[in-house]
Amino acid sequence: MRLKRKDLLGIEELSSEEIELILETAASMKEVSEREIKKVPTLRGKTIINLFYEPSTRTRTSFEIAAKRMSADAINISLSASSVVKGETLKDTALNLEAMNPDCIVVRHSVSGTPRMLAGYLSSTVINAGDGSHEHPSQALLDMMTVKEKLGRIKGVKLTIVGDIAHSRVARSNIYGFTKLGAVVTVCGPKTMLPPGIEALGCKATTDMQGAIKDADVIMMLRIQLERQKESLFPSTREYARLYGLDPVKLEKAPKDVIILHPGPINRGVEISPEVADGPWSLILNQVTNGVAVRMALFYLLLGGIKEEFS
Amino acid sequence: MRLKRKDLLGIEELSSEEIELILETAASMKEVSEREIKKVPTLRGKTIINLFYEPSTRTRTSFEIAAKRMSADAINISLSASSVVKGETLKDTALNLEAMNPDCIVVRHSVSGTPRMLAGYLSSTVINAGDGSHEHPSQALLDMMTVKEKLGRIKGVKLTIVGDIAHSRVARSNIYGFTKLGAVVTVCGPKTMLPPGIEALGCKATTDMQGAIKDADVIMMLRIQLERQKESLFPSTREYARLYGLDPVKLEKAPKDVIILHPGPINRGVEISPEVADGPWSLILNQVTNGVAVRMALFYLLLGGIKEEFS
Amino acid sequence: MRLKRKDLLGIEELSSEEIELILETAASMKEVSEREIKKVPTLRGKTIINLFYEPSTRTRTSFEIAAKRMSADAINISLSASSVVKGETLKDTALNLEAMNPDCIVVRHSVSGTPRMLAGYLSSTVINAGDGSHEHPSQALLDMMTVKEKLGRIKGVKLTIVGDIAHSRVARSNIYGFTKLGAVVTVCGPKTMLPPGIEALGCKATTDMQGAIKDADVIMMLRIQLERQKESLFPSTREYARLYGLDPVKLEKAPKDVIILHPGPINRGVEISPEVADGPWSLILNQVTNGVAVRMALFYLLLGGIKEEFS
Repeated sequence: MRLKRKDLLGIEELSSEEIELILETAASMKEVSEREIKKVPTLRGKTIINLFYEPSTRTRTSFEIAAKRMSADAINISLSASSVVKGETLKDTALNLEAMNPDCIVVRHSVSGTPRMLAGYLSSTVINAGDGSHEHPSQALLDMMTVKEKLGRIKGVKLTIVGDIAHSRVARSNIYGFTKLGAVVTVCGPKTMLPPGIEALGCKATTDMQGAIKDADVIMMLRIQLERQKESLFPSTREYARLYGLDPVKLEKAPKDVIILHPGPINRGVEISPEVADGPWSLILNQVTNGVAVRMALFYLLLGGIKEEFS
Repeated sequence: MRLKRKDLLGIEELSSEEIELILETAASMKEVSEREIKKVPTLRGKTIINLFYEPSTRTRTSFEIAAKRMSADAINISLSASSVVKGETLKDTALNLEAMNPDCIVVRHSVSGTPRMLAGYLSSTVINAGDGSHEHPSQALLDMMTVKEKLGRIKGVKLTIVGDIAHSRVARSNIYGFTKLGAVVTVCGPKTMLPPGIEALGCKATTDMQGAIKDADVIMMLRIQLERQKESLFPSTREYARLYGLDPVKLEKAPKDVIILHPGPINRGVEISPEVADGPWSLILNQVTNGVAVRMALFYLLLGGIKEEFS
Repeated sequence: MRLKRKDLLGIEELSSEEIELILETAASMKEVSEREIKKVPTLRGKTIINLFYEPSTRTRTSFEIAAKRMSADAINISLSASSVVKGETLKDTALNLEAMNPDCIVVRHSVSGTPRMLAGYLSSTVINAGDGSHEHPSQALLDMMTVKEKLGRIKGVKLTIVGDIAHSRVARSNIYGFTKLGAVVTVCGPKTMLPPGIEALGCKATTDMQGAIKDADVIMMLRIQLERQKESLFPSTREYARLYGLDPVKLEKAPKDVIILHPGPINRGVEISPEVADGPWSLILNQVTNGVAVRMALFYLLLGGIKEEFS
């Protein structure tokens, strides 16, 4: 039982059956991380390279831990855009790494489409760990896993995503994933953050936060990239927090048993208030835990480990 | 046989029995690093995260080697204070890491008390790898191990610590540790480097170096943080070296068989002269060797390996 | 069967028998990286430290993958020259690392002779991963392996090396290695890049590229260090490319079955045109693959693994 594809580049290209397979596999992988001995020999002798052109402690660590718990050899490479400018092309870097016989290259890059380009050049498996404002598929998978774990289903679930939809790879991957599994997705944010035509992806779009959350089963708050806000998509952080930040007052308009997701790292007091982030509705840390499980599942399903080996 | 505590935050909180247990365990761990195959399966499947907010090649490497020789999975995370400023809080970073099910987080931070704060939030084991000017417990343990190994005892040993006592976490941890085991500790340095009231920790304090070393069994020279000397705790490096640097002339005033320790990295010609650092009195490199053994012992005693497994 | 030496500091000091032994061992190691499970237990429990004072993703990754495929514990340390200036001496750093009982220290440094100096201080094995403009022995070994693999021999092969010979450790190591094995080596470049007296190493030198390549079996193009070209060894990059860059037009003057090597990373359009780099003559990616094999062989032959263990 494995994915019949070489790479994981985005949720857009996955069938609902493939997504379900990944989620089921991740559920069984999760148990490995709860054991006394958190390690299975499944991917012994496999080489996994984490090739990060954007810094990301959290995602890199999650992939690295996932690789090591599967007994793979994990190699970290952090490159800055600047080193790329004066050096070899991305394609050459990738071909050179591939010449060292890795089994999988996990790539994060600020330019949308980079993982797909690499996947075309390489015979190794490529996993997209986030590319520009395009996709972040492992994030969407862990989000779906978290919702399914909590609510028992995704079909029919009402998901509202709030924030800078236009620039968010997390939003895009989740819109694809949740709609494929039959959820009803609404995206919400100030007009400057809602890309025109986003409804074509199968979701509703609104600037009215209260309306967007009042029937939601799940609210996913996106991180405001404070460093990007020179572009002035809204007047001030305070203004954003007031209008679109999720705090206990706004949360009162949502159903009592709504659950809250956030891809992290969170900006406390900006898009989410501390009371909400730390409250009983929040599944933010469950998401992180499930992130390791999803990445173990991806390695397993793409690199061809044998199911029996980790049971 | 293991420590009955979740964390190692400082020497201050340890009983003399606990310290003795760590030193004995470290002595048996040391032998592992002298084998042809320097690896025991004791902590296979454990995940140890080195979370360093201050750069430290030496200490990070020592913890990483210790983890790997115990067969644990070691994950290195280096964060700068600057990234923390614009990003998530330290608490959120720690909670997120914990959500990935590590067994232990080794933390170094420039702010005193950070490891204790994290330990309160986390159910994982936290080991303090140096926090501000507070404590550096694994350093003190390796110092005690080195003295005990050489002199056969710590009780009654006369230890003199020379340098910037006020800002030294190494000094504080060693004062706690050596006095708990019955040593007689004197701290020595220029007035600007002796914190008022330091005697309350159970040591003597003096500005007179010759008097401080003349009966010493052990002299521990502290590193002068040249980068910090803008604060001008003394007129010049040369002046400091002349008054408090340990050179062969000063060493003549000490007992013939005195031993010299230094936590490293050393500033040759500042707090210690090359002749002394490289001389027969110096146990500086033994300290480094014992550092790996002490850290293996800490992982073993805190993460609950079974004694039999590494014999 | 192992090398009867502690260190690998350069090709200059190796006998042709030693080189042949390394090449043969590397050929058998190469197969490990082509297996489903790319890992042998040969160096389990050995500690290998990659101590890099110059950044080098490619070489560090190659050594790290080689170490991990041999089951050694690999520790990466990146230090900048600046940290060295204000900190401890290189010798002290090395002695401190050695005190942690590593089996091997792989060192790259911008100052020629650094690995030899360290080897004199340390009882651990030291492998030179490139020092200043002195030597880069593992690069030359992988180049020889690639030529031997393709042409079946090195004796009598005509090798032409083109580029900044004066500053190239790759060139020096290859001149030593290929001439020891009986190849005929010609170096070629503008006058400013040809060190006076280079013929004493046993090669011919010329500024005439067409003459240098017309009978060559192998052309090795060196990387132009664009960042170094402030020194103006030639008027402009464009000028260099026109005169000494290898493009299809110049390549027509060479024998039909000539093979092209380049140590990477390549500057497309400067010393080598894309058509040549990606063409059928190019063995650039084979070189990278063989790099891992050569480094596995070096670890094996220097750290004393037992031959049977990886068969």
